[in-house]
Amino acid sequence: AVLATELRCQCPKTIPRINFEEIQSLKVTTPGPHCTQTEVIATLKNGQDVCLNPEAPLVQRIIQKILKPTRPS
Amino acid sequence: AVLATELRCQCPKTIPRINFEEIQSLKVTTPGPHCTQTEVIATLKNGQDVCLNPEAPLVQRIIQKILKPTRPS
Repeated sequence: AVLATELRCQCPKTIPRINFEEIQSLKVTTPGPHCTQTEVIATLKNGQDVCLNPEAPLVQRIIQKILKPTRPS
Repeated sequence: AVLATELRCQCPKTIPRINFEEIQSLKVTTPGPHCTQTEVIATLKNGQDVCLNPEAPLVQRIIQKILKPTRPS
């Protein structure tokens, strides 16, 4: 059986800011039959899921930071 | 009980390329106690999970494309 949660959008609302250090993982979902909008869901280290605005520059900065962490030279 | 899959890295190997159109969602995981490396896991529309190299420019291009789809002007 398909889970009900997969058949609808998961982000009724987004939060405006987030502390980068709290983020465990970030999931970006493309629009599809279940939901016509792009969704960005951050899973925090405390287990909580929060939604972010896909169009917010914040999201791109977070992804850049995860993908290219500053390395000691 | 904590799932065993959360206690280890999920990406033993990465694939070099992927068709953007096949991607349903993309998950970026930060290093943590369970896994010391950054991981990028793409879930495809056919349900398959594949891992991508977090340092590959491809990953950034995919994320850009998901977050800022071309809109008709």
